[in-house]
Amino acid sequence: MKPVVIMDPPRADAAVVAELGELGVATVHEAAGKTGLLGTFLRPAWTGARAAGTALTVLCGPGDNLMLHAAIEQARPGDLLVVTTTSPSSDGFAGELITTGLAARGVRGLVTTTGVRDVAAITEARFPVWSQFVSAQGTLKAIAGAVNMPVSIGGTVIAPGDAVVADDDGVVCIPRAQAAQVAADGRRRAQHEDEARDAFARGELGLDRYQLRAVLERLGVTYVRAEQSRPAGGER
Amino acid sequence: MKPVVIMDPPRADAAVVAELGELGVATVHEAAGKTGLLGTFLRPAWTGARAAGTALTVLCGPGDNLMLHAAIEQARPGDLLVVTTTSPSSDGFAGELITTGLAARGVRGLVTTTGVRDVAAITEARFPVWSQFVSAQGTLKAIAGAVNMPVSIGGTVIAPGDAVVADDDGVVCIPRAQAAQVAADGRRRAQHEDEARDAFARGELGLDRYQLRAVLERLGVTYVRAEQSRPAGGER
Amino acid sequence: MKPVVIMDPPRADAAVVAELGELGVATVHEAAGKTGLLGTFLRPAWTGARAAGTALTVLCGPGDNLMLHAAIEQARPGDLLVVTTTSPSSDGFAGELITTGLAARGVRGLVTTTGVRDVAAITEARFPVWSQFVSAQGTLKAIAGAVNMPVSIGGTVIAPGDAVVADDDGVVCIPRAQAAQVAADGRRRAQHEDEARDAFARGELGLDRYQLRAVLERLGVTYVRAEQSRPAGGER
Amino acid sequence: MKPVVIMDPPRADAAVVAELGELGVATVHEAAGKTGLLGTFLRPAWTGARAAGTALTVLCGPGDNLMLHAAIEQARPGDLLVVTTTSPSSDGFAGELITTGLAARGVRGLVTTTGVRDVAAITEARFPVWSQFVSAQGTLKAIAGAVNMPVSIGGTVIAPGDAVVADDDGVVCIPRAQAAQVAADGRRRAQHEDEARDAFARGELGLDRYQLRAVLERLGVTYVRAEQSRPAGGER
Amino acid sequence: MKPVVIMDPPRADAAVVAELGELGVATVHEAAGKTGLLGTFLRPAWTGARAAGTALTVLCGPGDNLMLHAAIEQARPGDLLVVTTTSPSSDGFAGELITTGLAARGVRGLVTTTGVRDVAAITEARFPVWSQFVSAQGTLKAIAGAVNMPVSIGGTVIAPGDAVVADDDGVVCIPRAQAAQVAADGRRRAQHEDEARDAFARGELGLDRYQLRAVLERLGVTYVRAEQSRPAGGER
Amino acid sequence: MKPVVIMDPPRADAAVVAELGELGVATVHEAAGKTGLLGTFLRPAWTGARAAGTALTVLCGPGDNLMLHAAIEQARPGDLLVVTTTSPSSDGFAGELITTGLAARGVRGLVTTTGVRDVAAITEARFPVWSQFVSAQGTLKAIAGAVNMPVSIGGTVIAPGDAVVADDDGVVCIPRAQAAQVAADGRRRAQHEDEARDAFARGELGLDRYQLRAVLERLGVTYVRAEQSRPAGGER
Repeated sequence: MKPVVIMDPPRADAAVVAELGELGVATVHEAAGKTGLLGTFLRPAWTGARAAGTALTVLCGPGDNLMLHAAIEQARPGDLLVVTTTSPSSDGFAGELITTGLAARGVRGLVTTTGVRDVAAITEARFPVWSQFVSAQGTLKAIAGAVNMPVSIGGTVIAPGDAVVADDDGVVCIPRAQAAQVAADGRRRAQHEDEARDAFARGELGLDRYQLRAVLERLGVTYVRAEQSRPAGGER
Repeated sequence: MKPVVIMDPPRADAAVVAELGELGVATVHEAAGKTGLLGTFLRPAWTGARAAGTALTVLCGPGDNLMLHAAIEQARPGDLLVVTTTSPSSDGFAGELITTGLAARGVRGLVTTTGVRDVAAITEARFPVWSQFVSAQGTLKAIAGAVNMPVSIGGTVIAPGDAVVADDDGVVCIPRAQAAQVAADGRRRAQHEDEARDAFARGELGLDRYQLRAVLERLGVTYVRAEQSRPAGGER
Repeated sequence: MKPVVIMDPPRADAAVVAELGELGVATVHEAAGKTGLLGTFLRPAWTGARAAGTALTVLCGPGDNLMLHAAIEQARPGDLLVVTTTSPSSDGFAGELITTGLAARGVRGLVTTTGVRDVAAITEARFPVWSQFVSAQGTLKAIAGAVNMPVSIGGTVIAPGDAVVADDDGVVCIPRAQAAQVAADGRRRAQHEDEARDAFARGELGLDRYQLRAVLERLGVTYVRAEQSRPAGGER
Repeated sequence: MKPVVIMDPPRADAAVVAELGELGVATVHEAAGKTGLLGTFLRPAWTGARAAGTALTVLCGPGDNLMLHAAIEQARPGDLLVVTTTSPSSDGFAGELITTGLAARGVRGLVTTTGVRDVAAITEARFPVWSQFVSAQGTLKAIAGAVNMPVSIGGTVIAPGDAVVADDDGVVCIPRAQAAQVAADGRRRAQHEDEARDAFARGELGLDRYQLRAVLERLGVTYVRAEQSRPAGGER
Repeated sequence: MKPVVIMDPPRADAAVVAELGELGVATVHEAAGKTGLLGTFLRPAWTGARAAGTALTVLCGPGDNLMLHAAIEQARPGDLLVVTTTSPSSDGFAGELITTGLAARGVRGLVTTTGVRDVAAITEARFPVWSQFVSAQGTLKAIAGAVNMPVSIGGTVIAPGDAVVADDDGVVCIPRAQAAQVAADGRRRAQHEDEARDAFARGELGLDRYQLRAVLERLGVTYVRAEQSRPAGGER
Repeated sequence: MKPVVIMDPPRADAAVVAELGELGVATVHEAAGKTGLLGTFLRPAWTGARAAGTALTVLCGPGDNLMLHAAIEQARPGDLLVVTTTSPSSDGFAGELITTGLAARGVRGLVTTTGVRDVAAITEARFPVWSQFVSAQGTLKAIAGAVNMPVSIGGTVIAPGDAVVADDDGVVCIPRAQAAQVAADGRRRAQHEDEARDAFARGELGLDRYQLRAVLERLGVTYVRAEQSRPAGGER
């Protein structure tokens, strides 16, 4: 890893990012062909947190948040910080001070594979944060890293400027070049989901709506009344 | 595993199940002789969720919720879906659409070893859900499985029609044939617990109420004043 | 381990403990030279729980809460129970009954490496509890242990009478003899943090406030504009 | 759970069990329709351990191996002990003494969700053991449990007398009534696997042997030469 | 993810890859500036396994190894398969049959975030395999994926044709364009390590060899004789 | 934590430590009243490793092994290094170089909560190492810590000079002041275990040897023949 800060990477279109944010993580993930999730280990610091922004990526050393400070200077309104480390670290990389600074610069949220602290203050300020840990353990400011180089979390690569959406369901990243297409697909998908939800609320079955009875039959799934299942099932 | 849907299994009595639900998981578990818990890894999707119902069991393939759709058709008011997979899977097997369909059919809740998604919508709808993961990762509809065959979660076997109770403390399953007896034992236990809580609130000690001083003495537990403990304890 | 109950150990000063509690876990941990945390695995039973007290330490056998009952008799107003086991145990060592008894004796909170149950009742009563697990699994009362002997959790030793502070960020323990000094250092630190937060809210950068530009330069971190980074970075 | 020792349950046929053992865990699991695995968390105490026997099931309290002693008296040559607990426990439930006793009675092996100890002695004696943990932590002998009642591990129910096969790949359980059929299917499967292995060793492709090219085509998988993939793939 | 098989990507130079393999994972990782590790969760299937090859990357659906079969056709002598899934999966994606096919095509090894099976046969054949799990659980062949698209494991991106080195210490990936430089740096580093090892074997201290006494002094580390440390350390 | 190196702490008697080493971890742990284990997460780097020595304790920063180098200078023949960090760290704190230096100074082994690397070389040299992780990830040399201050691992406090024993079953620590007594108790216990093993090999039952039939009866465990258990057990 070259210790570098990349300045002013191209960013996904702000209107597109906002629209992805309204669609939410689950719909965006589906619209992107079931790709882009960052892993179930990232949880919101407070229930109901939602955010969407353009990725400002940060790679730190374990137990050291120096590069986070370097990243804040690079932040533009609409950005969302995505932080990870060169080796696993559960320490509290960000708390009230750093999130205050991020909010002051118009940053939309923070996603980190590390821990965070000052959860009560972050919750009260309603600053959106997703992390793998909560930890009061402080960090140093002595290890070089990188800002705005691609990072990889939970099998997904996040490049600077990509669109990142996060809510109670987790975090999803859409490459900048695909963001508009995914937003368009997501709008259609959201409409279908609205119709399906209304249908299910009226009692329609997924078996009928999605033509799954044929799938069950093709797979050899049989239907048996309970009172007839004992003899067929044998002694157990 | 035979790919089969068992229809209309006998179900635990609805009034008994409702009574178990009022007693709550901890009391029911104690009344059942400290048995029936499904494991600490199952957590409610929203704080305060409570549910009790008759088990409608579903066995799916990993990453595939086809049988969940087959199960919904079998659901009767008062049922509670219990879902697991043939191989571990953290994907989001159910979200807003499926829980809307379950609620429309009078299903009381959903317990799954997999992930769920659309947590914000589920929370807003107050539909009770317990899962091992939260994940936006979508599923396929292509693998056969079983509905209303016994499944096993966290060392506990859940048969269709068993009484299942879930709250903030976790999930417990009581075999259908024992439900009435456990409910009766639970009522007595709940009354004892009420009395004990009142006693403890007045300052009575568990040592006295449960005759534990004799146990401590039999086990050789001694009492030493702190100022005398250093010499006895040696240099450390 | 000698099965023993140590009575009336010296306790950290109540006013100092209260002050540490107001400072909160993260500030106290920093003021103590980044020491004393009990591990990220201890989480509050309800969001917003805060507590500070003098440690009343309890060492139990796995799946057995006998010594918890012995400990309650030793509790003085202002104490905070710190419970662990000789071998890992996720069972529900304490619930509504025990926390009612603790509250009746003026105990400020409960920290345990085990599970707890009756989370809904504990939450309603607003009794502060931190645990590693939530589990309805009941315990026995048959294994000897120790009360007010030093215990060790997550790499930190907790001696009876030490100051323990807990909030949404976790749990920290300060040795009795250092409590006053840490509180004094914490006050100064809190003031610096207030000033830093105000500065960050106005847009000041950590890079400037903490003189980190020199650190970055010394570590060889370079700044490159995005449009110039492709050639330098090679084909990937 | 009723505290009971069930004596002399019917057992799967010894010759069938031996044949299943020769087939090995992976082949038996496939022949049983991809069912019966006890979970990846069970690992052999020494590399190369293999065993097959009829299940002698034991349910213990956490940290207490009393029922293991009761089980040894019920053991018949050809049995294999399957041990779990009512609540999770990592303690060392069995070591040199108990495995010596098991070997003396012709028991084929031990599978336990708990820990084991004396691994060096067990390895030297080549007694086959699978466990979730290695732990020197000793146990008590004070909690009632059950012998030869069905238990459930990793989602699989093991009834007394079932056929259990274990090797480096894990542990699989086949219900007694299905053991002969699974063994017959397994023989055929093993022959197919031998033929496939020889074919693959000669360079035949699975794509051809299993007609997978059609599957890839139906799923829309396309083939692109690397030098042409950049333009198609967009800027990333 | 576009379902695609990329054919004949450019590959790192075979001689360079071989040299990296001789240096071993730890030295290569250091020579690459402490980058490129795939995570501590990947462990060799048998002790002593070592391999180096050019990455042939495979992205599968969870519980489905269809694309592994597609990948084998693309394998060239000197390749090393790197497999991951779109959603976590512990199933046994490869066993004796697939590793036989890989060996027949001159593939150097297999690295997978999933499980593997037939560990005994793989060990006997000495085919080098690293995986996150061992599991006999079989897979399907029904989900599209990708071959020779970049994948990401444990925070490291692996592109097709990159140099991959694996041994008892884990797995490291070096981008193709940097492989020669890292090999050259690694050679120098290995020589320094040889000299250091000889020096340490003669009793030289790292404190002297690396000039660490000055670092300790700058950080304020003091030296105290044990008999004088009690008074200074206070009562604890 | 005060950054300090304590020199020449009093050490447990070498002959006593050697005797504890011959007894092994499981017997020593029992002789110490089931105390002193450091946790199941510490595993030997190679099968069959055994060691006993006097604790030379090291507290490092996460990802930084500076204090390990300071510790080596303090090592005396017969010592055993016990290493942990102020915050969790899986990095490879020691490898071939450091273990070579330790061996050159007569150190008996290394126990660390971190990772280690160069496992193949360590195995070939037969230097005894126990760690929580294997990781090639390198460390820095820039964070102050402590040598020969008490540390705490897995709930056990290890003071400098304590007796530490490690083998395939894990790691146990005996306070220096108790080492002779535990060794004496261990000798008696080992003799009893030898007699018990011989008895069990002859077919004697633990039920008889330990008078457990009375315990079973007191706990209400009943014996039922399998053919009579169905009616008694009800429909399930």
